[in-house]
Amino acid sequence: MSEERIMDLDPVIHTPIRLAVLSVLAAVQSADFAYLKESVKATDGNLSTHLSKLEAAGYIRIEKTFQGKKPKTLCSMTEQGRTRFIQYIDNLQKIVDQQKGNL
Amino acid sequence: MSEERIMDLDPVIHTPIRLAVLSVLAAVQSADFAYLKESVKATDGNLSTHLSKLEAAGYIRIEKTFQGKKPKTLCSMTEQGRTRFIQYIDNLQKIVDQQKGNL
Repeated sequence: MSEERIMDLDPVIHTPIRLAVLSVLAAVQSADFAYLKESVKATDGNLSTHLSKLEAAGYIRIEKTFQGKKPKTLCSMTEQGRTRFIQYIDNLQKIVDQQKGNL
Repeated sequence: MSEERIMDLDPVIHTPIRLAVLSVLAAVQSADFAYLKESVKATDGNLSTHLSKLEAAGYIRIEKTFQGKKPKTLCSMTEQGRTRFIQYIDNLQKIVDQQKGNL
């Protein structure tokens, strides 16, 4: 049933800002903090909070490096993150298909 | 861009329990509280809170009636709710399509 599938949607991914971050990272090898911030239109603090949640869940990898003297935060999707993201998108597709049948 | 579309997803609908409630109500003329509770596997308090949010947004109508001496809460989708729900599902489809292109 569609409702069960909806209630089972991965809560780590479902929050829009985290879904948007994963959507960026699914398409690139890695992205820095500034690029992600521009892509998802988030504040520094809000983006940091959500990146930490994705990292804690093992969905992304965060590397702090330097570009010359400037600190740089590089994010990339882990294998687990990609697997879960693919599952999430697959579930969304099934939910959408079922709704279209109802509407 | 997919990220903008994600950040624009209607927050009234995006919360799983509210999405699940609307998914039930999209398919029926009306549903009572007990039926919704069973469908979305929520506690009374949690379901009440989310039904109130959907009602305050004008997406559902809540009618308190009696079946014999037993109070009954009947919920149905408003025209506005249906329009927004269709838009939301349409947006989800576009997001899914774009992700599939990236994965």
